[in-house]
Amino acid sequence: MAGVRWHQTDLLDRAAAARLIREVRPSHLLHLAWTVEHGAFWTSPDNLDWLAASLHLLRCFNEAGGSRFLGIGSGAEYGDCAGDCDEAETPLCPASLYAAAKSSLWSTGRHYAQTVELGFVWCRLFQVFGVGEPQTRLIPSVIGALLRGEVVAVGSGTAVRDFVDVRDAAAALKVILLSDFSGALNVGTGRGRSIAEVCESIGRQLGRPELIGIGRRQDRPGEPGRIVADVARLRSVNGELPATTLEDSIADVIGWLSEGKVTAQRGQARP
Amino acid sequence: MAGVRWHQTDLLDRAAAARLIREVRPSHLLHLAWTVEHGAFWTSPDNLDWLAASLHLLRCFNEAGGSRFLGIGSGAEYGDCAGDCDEAETPLCPASLYAAAKSSLWSTGRHYAQTVELGFVWCRLFQVFGVGEPQTRLIPSVIGALLRGEVVAVGSGTAVRDFVDVRDAAAALKVILLSDFSGALNVGTGRGRSIAEVCESIGRQLGRPELIGIGRRQDRPGEPGRIVADVARLRSVNGELPATTLEDSIADVIGWLSEGKVTAQRGQARP
Repeated sequence: MAGVRWHQTDLLDRAAAARLIREVRPSHLLHLAWTVEHGAFWTSPDNLDWLAASLHLLRCFNEAGGSRFLGIGSGAEYGDCAGDCDEAETPLCPASLYAAAKSSLWSTGRHYAQTVELGFVWCRLFQVFGVGEPQTRLIPSVIGALLRGEVVAVGSGTAVRDFVDVRDAAAALKVILLSDFSGALNVGTGRGRSIAEVCESIGRQLGRPELIGIGRRQDRPGEPGRIVADVARLRSVNGELPATTLEDSIADVIGWLSEGKVTAQRGQARP
Repeated sequence: MAGVRWHQTDLLDRAAAARLIREVRPSHLLHLAWTVEHGAFWTSPDNLDWLAASLHLLRCFNEAGGSRFLGIGSGAEYGDCAGDCDEAETPLCPASLYAAAKSSLWSTGRHYAQTVELGFVWCRLFQVFGVGEPQTRLIPSVIGALLRGEVVAVGSGTAVRDFVDVRDAAAALKVILLSDFSGALNVGTGRGRSIAEVCESIGRQLGRPELIGIGRRQDRPGEPGRIVADVARLRSVNGELPATTLEDSIADVIGWLSEGKVTAQRGQARP
């Protein structure tokens, strides 16, 4: 990519991470790395190491003269939430090790940033998905099964999430990083959709609704019922909200996974 | 001490800490270390390193077959609290980097412990003081000044804290470590005393009440008004509450600092 210089390091290697930050002396840091292996990351002990490595990175960044750090949190930090999750009002009740480690980085990170007068913004991503994501994750795995003509075993499908297209999320992160906002900021659409609705939308778009097997699998124990973003703060900082509809995003993932095979079907299947 | 074997390591050196835990393979771990430099620890960036080192220690301990980890938290994790701080009901609103780092270790640590089925108890110490503590801390510094005949500049003195004798706290930690309780547990007396009351008690015991200069110094900005433990859970786990009265504890610190000089005065000065 023009104008981009790549550097590579292992953030879990404290000395190597410190060395890189001292060499590059970045003014802005967008910290996306974490343990993310699908299914395993909720309970992985590696969450402890990523929390520790992120604290170390934050301190190195500040001590090398950095001015603005953007960390990535998760809607899961809120836990189960009857209404929409509001950055200022909704208490954080993380229901998993992953969510607890993320909210710990937020809590300790923001107090550190206040102390040393560092710009610190914490973007809580909601249910990001889209072209290029690991095919073990919900939407690509359902699409993949349907493309192969297989029945998909889904849980109760009642959990409601705020699905946001990865391109919209990435565009928002760039705007937020370059803004002067400090604090926590939800990155979602403000619209809740149940897992069942999402699966059924995929079934419709691929013309195979009968392959969606709602209730054929156990839900993950302790999974929160509803996690949807309040997006007033995102609108004010980002200037707009994620605009891609769930149906368009799904259509693009279908196009990517089927390499053009279902393109003809897309227009017809969209609501 | 008979029956005690000492090992020494630097917990901030990850490899050294891991090596020691692998060699010793402890069944129980009481983790007291942290950055504690008086005055500085509230905002020290070393809080980040101690949080990271503690997460590392916790993981090493579990992976070496440990069964029970006792970590040390603080009443400061609750922040300002109108009523008594209850482990189950009172939200954590840490008002300092120190308190945020401690509550992060609690939050991430307990989720980790649940995941790996490790016994994890988190003792929130309230205002521990007593014989042997650094002489820069509140009670020894006030006593020291009065023994030298100097006026002590105190802030407004309105902050209310739950003062607990270090010997009572240590005895409770031992009982709790060997119990099978998991979760958060306040270690305090359940009695709130204002800083002014404590200073005036010292003044009375030393016969120099006129040297206590309430209002002669600024309060630390953002200092919570009231932090007092609800002790129902401590009573049920420990079987009893800290029994040494504030006045007796102060008398013992006076005895220690004056090397016997004020012993004669103690009986008379106590209420």
